[in-house]
Amino acid sequence: MGYSPTLEALIEKFRSLPGIGGKTAVRLAFFMLNSSEEYVSEFANCIVEARAKTRTCRICQSLSDSEICAICADETRDKSLVCVVENAKDIATFERVKEYNGVYHVLHGVISPMDGVGPDDIRVKELLARITADGVREVILATGSNVEGEATAMYVSQLVKPFGTAASRLAYGLPVGGELEYADSVTLYKALEGRREM
Amino acid sequence: MGYSPTLEALIEKFRSLPGIGGKTAVRLAFFMLNSSEEYVSEFANCIVEARAKTRTCRICQSLSDSEICAICADETRDKSLVCVVENAKDIATFERVKEYNGVYHVLHGVISPMDGVGPDDIRVKELLARITADGVREVILATGSNVEGEATAMYVSQLVKPFGTAASRLAYGLPVGGELEYADSVTLYKALEGRREM
Repeated sequence: MGYSPTLEALIEKFRSLPGIGGKTAVRLAFFMLNSSEEYVSEFANCIVEARAKTRTCRICQSLSDSEICAICADETRDKSLVCVVENAKDIATFERVKEYNGVYHVLHGVISPMDGVGPDDIRVKELLARITADGVREVILATGSNVEGEATAMYVSQLVKPFGTAASRLAYGLPVGGELEYADSVTLYKALEGRREM
Repeated sequence: MGYSPTLEALIEKFRSLPGIGGKTAVRLAFFMLNSSEEYVSEFANCIVEARAKTRTCRICQSLSDSEICAICADETRDKSLVCVVENAKDIATFERVKEYNGVYHVLHGVISPMDGVGPDDIRVKELLARITADGVREVILATGSNVEGEATAMYVSQLVKPFGTAASRLAYGLPVGGELEYADSVTLYKALEGRREM
């Protein structure tokens, strides 16, 4: 199609990235070929180094540069309140709220028998180890609201309760500032079900 | 914001790419950190190698793996018809049409005094060298329809005409299958101006 084999291979590589379609892949490939060799090798090194340097925090299993991540190492955070999320990415979403002062635990997935992911494939035993070691009083289950997320939240809550640890789930309802007419019926049902006395 | 410094640096690197916003940069960075080290180093190598291997075709100035690109090396293509484009990327767009059997010439930019790009900064003299060497009978100017593209087309056409080479410009008009009501007025004006007898 008028592209050289090397360029074609580079376009394919970019296309293999999540959320990158054909046109973006072409644009990125041309951008790289039109950049200086220094920029390109710096870019490549950055990816390789980040991958090599990054490991999971020994405590919360989030991605970190060091053995213990910045949040777990922070003395001012409440270690007895643990928010359980699916991915390390979710932590940044919570941190943006700025109101949460507890710590996190990253499961690295959800239980999904269809995809061959069982309870032993996610980091649940690391969470249980923290429950006793850190005297966790409450676990907030912040996994997704789909079937797998709900099942995982249910599973984890059943495991932590015998330790005397409370298990809570994020509230579902209407988004703040959203119009009633745009709410889907499942969300509206959850909002009705979870209604609170005024 | 809950990301480690290394991860933050990687996100910034992805964000520096054209058309990649904050959320996509985060997704790509996490994708890399969650991929195997083999995949990541293969990806990085692919970019560096492509950049190192790719050069410009000695004839048409397009990007190529070899001294002469596949199109210029193709014996069946008409070397006396040259389509002049701004970027190597544009060639693929023409090749998709499948009806064009001439060759190309990549200017690598357009004349733009505002951006400090003069006639000597684009590959015009390489084009003039071909005019005499290959006996080019027609040059099709396919630069953009903005001010810079038009000025560049005008400039190149003035240069090639003394050699007895015809200079043509792509037709402007209504897109095929487009509704009249959605046509912008400049396009409609061009369509009127360029109307043809039936």
